[in-house]
Amino acid sequence: MSETRLSGVAVSPGRASGPVVRVAEPLGEPPSTPKPEDPQADAARIAPATRAVAARLEALSEKASGEAATILLTTAAMAADPALVSEAERLVLQEGKPAARAVCESANVFAQTLAAAGGYLAERVRDIEDVRDRVVAELLGVEPPGVPELTSPSVLVARDLAPADTAGLDRERVLALVTEEGGPTSHTAILARALGIPAVVAVRGLLTTDAKALLVDGDTGQVEVVDPDAPVLTAVVAGPAEWNGVGTTSDGHWVKVLGNVGSPADARAAADAGAEGVGLFRTEFCYLDAPAEPSVDEQRAAYAAVLAPFAGKQVIVRTLDAGADKPLAFLSPEEEPNPALGVRGLRVAFDRRDVLDRQLEAIAGAAGESGAEVSVMAPMVATAEEAAWFAERVRAAGIARAGVMIEIPAAALSAREILEAVDFVSIGTNDLAQYTFAADRQLGAVAKLNDPWQPALLRLIKLVGDAARATGKPVGVCGEAAADPLLARVLTGLGVTSLSMNAAAIRAVGAGLAATTLAQCEAAAAAALAAPDPATAREGARES
Amino acid sequence: MSETRLSGVAVSPGRASGPVVRVAEPLGEPPSTPKPEDPQADAARIAPATRAVAARLEALSEKASGEAATILLTTAAMAADPALVSEAERLVLQEGKPAARAVCESANVFAQTLAAAGGYLAERVRDIEDVRDRVVAELLGVEPPGVPELTSPSVLVARDLAPADTAGLDRERVLALVTEEGGPTSHTAILARALGIPAVVAVRGLLTTDAKALLVDGDTGQVEVVDPDAPVLTAVVAGPAEWNGVGTTSDGHWVKVLGNVGSPADARAAADAGAEGVGLFRTEFCYLDAPAEPSVDEQRAAYAAVLAPFAGKQVIVRTLDAGADKPLAFLSPEEEPNPALGVRGLRVAFDRRDVLDRQLEAIAGAAGESGAEVSVMAPMVATAEEAAWFAERVRAAGIARAGVMIEIPAAALSAREILEAVDFVSIGTNDLAQYTFAADRQLGAVAKLNDPWQPALLRLIKLVGDAARATGKPVGVCGEAAADPLLARVLTGLGVTSLSMNAAAIRAVGAGLAATTLAQCEAAAAAALAAPDPATAREGARES
Repeated sequence: MSETRLSGVAVSPGRASGPVVRVAEPLGEPPSTPKPEDPQADAARIAPATRAVAARLEALSEKASGEAATILLTTAAMAADPALVSEAERLVLQEGKPAARAVCESANVFAQTLAAAGGYLAERVRDIEDVRDRVVAELLGVEPPGVPELTSPSVLVARDLAPADTAGLDRERVLALVTEEGGPTSHTAILARALGIPAVVAVRGLLTTDAKALLVDGDTGQVEVVDPDAPVLTAVVAGPAEWNGVGTTSDGHWVKVLGNVGSPADARAAADAGAEGVGLFRTEFCYLDAPAEPSVDEQRAAYAAVLAPFAGKQVIVRTLDAGADKPLAFLSPEEEPNPALGVRGLRVAFDRRDVLDRQLEAIAGAAGESGAEVSVMAPMVATAEEAAWFAERVRAAGIARAGVMIEIPAAALSAREILEAVDFVSIGTNDLAQYTFAADRQLGAVAKLNDPWQPALLRLIKLVGDAARATGKPVGVCGEAAADPLLARVLTGLGVTSLSMNAAAIRAVGAGLAATTLAQCEAAAAAALAAPDPATAREGARES
Repeated sequence: MSETRLSGVAVSPGRASGPVVRVAEPLGEPPSTPKPEDPQADAARIAPATRAVAARLEALSEKASGEAATILLTTAAMAADPALVSEAERLVLQEGKPAARAVCESANVFAQTLAAAGGYLAERVRDIEDVRDRVVAELLGVEPPGVPELTSPSVLVARDLAPADTAGLDRERVLALVTEEGGPTSHTAILARALGIPAVVAVRGLLTTDAKALLVDGDTGQVEVVDPDAPVLTAVVAGPAEWNGVGTTSDGHWVKVLGNVGSPADARAAADAGAEGVGLFRTEFCYLDAPAEPSVDEQRAAYAAVLAPFAGKQVIVRTLDAGADKPLAFLSPEEEPNPALGVRGLRVAFDRRDVLDRQLEAIAGAAGESGAEVSVMAPMVATAEEAAWFAERVRAAGIARAGVMIEIPAAALSAREILEAVDFVSIGTNDLAQYTFAADRQLGAVAKLNDPWQPALLRLIKLVGDAARATGKPVGVCGEAAADPLLARVLTGLGVTSLSMNAAAIRAVGAGLAATTLAQCEAAAAAALAAPDPATAREGARES
């Protein structure tokens, strides 16, 4: 690999070039000595420091909007977490550690738990590390790490970006984002797309170059060292799109444009962005902060709050997706050598039907209260037999429509039999890619394989689209693939009948569909399917 | 689930019923107190105890034959491992632990390392635990755990069986094997097939029943509690088959019957069993015991010893399959949250081309010395681009034929493009099933999904068979699926052109093919493909 051309995973489209600004690496670990002379006084400094950091993050969130604002508020709440503070205070008072070191250790324990958990929770590790570094910097009285104040348009280069970094970005001055780590579903990727900034992640060798200026191609994943005196190239991307709020191609082929939500705030953001309903309602938020399983009444109230903005509209609720990679204490999961290949999702329910049945009861109740048209689907289904088992329990709970996620290759290969057992399916492209390529979605080293433009992944999706046409039942996509306007066309051409995504992507995807015909979508799909690799697939779709 | 009917994974065919004999659970952990009065004397008891156990295992191996004998010899060698003994002696002398406890701890450290390694190595954990329990029993002067002496025909019930248990079985008195744990690739499964004893593994709830007699169906995986006074039903299975040593159907369709080997002893056993060549030569044995990477000369000599019995015959050498789940110190793998989805197999070579190139040089040298017709294939290939990269390096090393394993679903979905880049492919059904079903092959709780009769897996294999026909290139199967005579017919019907297996299965598979026509194989394949589940697939294949 030449030193002047690097490549990574393209996660947000557009091309831009300009001078490099490097995001400072996090602070090193503060020393554990000398012991504080007055432990009481040192411990007492911790809580105010966390409050100061939380307040600054909240202030940043007021300047941001949409998802960025939500993420900053979540991070602020982490900073003020009483458990983090009290464990740090204990380390000062009982073990004689300096305050900065104590905060660092307390945060690291939390971060390790999240990292070991894998999946969605592991993607939150960067958030807690960001909070840690900001509080440590506050206690040490130094500048916090992160994005420096930009004075002119620049290409930002980092190991990975924390949500607080990306959320506080000055969009006018950031030409492009390039990171050494991260993957297609990292915060860097999601927020870059939301802000319309070209981005390439998982660029191995990036941090060891001493490039003064870079050309970044967010369509191909190529990153090239260029002459620092060359004129700045501003990103070539479409501006915020206009959309009339009805998901359809220009020739009237309906494709519902839906929101992915996991909290009441998400639901409001999706509704504000014009979502025609919810294609993926993640219910884990209701369990995550609970010391024990929440009661049916608690669950019903929590679900009703999310359903509220969607009275009269379609909402697909996904049942609890937990397991060794997303551990919940009350399910007491056993340690597994490969949690992503273990007892997770619906597999947990085979031994704990009571937990599933209570959740279904709560969902049925919340659906009645809210007036939303509620369907339920199960995560991690592998066979038609499992799908039929789930559908039977859903119907017994008085819920009219039952579906399953297609996120395991076997399920895509059995889509026909599965669709005969349920009312609809929804493709989770993130996990489906992970299993189809045997490539952990958390692992930078294999991120290129997790590209949703991989033709082998699109071929599996086609099998599901064909089965949906044959059975006359709907098939949605609720992975990150649905949030890419060009890929949304390909998915439509493959027979997908609804697309569900983060609120930030809804308008661009809706507008993109409205600007194309079904025949164009089918041509784009055919070109992508026949391509030998993701870059050719993307190019073929764009040109068709 | 009713208490009188249990179900698990059928791993060895035939039906039998009779009284239950339970295999004793392993000894509890010996206490760590009191400290030995004379540590020198206590430590000195360890080496003789391990030698006594090793000697008994060697004696057992002389009564056994074929693969069982090899496994017993391997286990005997583990018992006499100087590292195990010296660490145990250190624990007595330096930490004052009693000898039995010290042996237990020393063995556990080794077992944990293997378990953390996952994959093939993790399946060896039961062996080291068996050695541990035998040495501990020897030191404590008690009966060792394991299979009791059988006085009448019985159904053996166990948590899982150690190789030493299964290898020492009195075939005349064991009607069937049933285990709570284990999977289709466990020793219990492999040896039950070799001995022609019906077996069902991964029967959840088995150990908590108090059944006095069981009916075991090794075709469907059903296990039923029956009246203890009912007459004994002897297994209905075919006896040792006759085979003329040429792999072909009765109407002359050629299907090579090859051996899977991983050592010189394996290679001799495969040749003795009549293998027409080697479909999978695992090269890890050459690296596993080495403190550093073996030199090209050392590798060449090791490979030549395996190739020796196959002069003039086809041998497919698989390049090093290491990674975080099969760690080798000199590759310094990083810890990964899901090693099976991480940097393993060919992925390691992307950053360590030098290691691959040295191995290819050694293979080319060994091929020349031995006169075997050597091809080389890479493990863990996901895309045609990776396949082409590998083929280029193989040809540069002067080896004529390059192929890749199809063990990642994406590779099966890109079989056409991959076959255009290489000379042949070989399907690894064990890993392919694991990824296709997102089900860890080491995990009892998901073992049913790893059944090679799953129709979704057979559909993926069909895609590869179709691509092989279209390109006119060969496709082998080298996973456990190839060792099942009935499944071997289905694979032949799907377009597979060679089958590679453990030596013990070669005659039965060769004889099974010779007793069928290609049209019957194709009918069996069609029936299995269209089935909704593994049991129906098996039944459909048998009846067609």
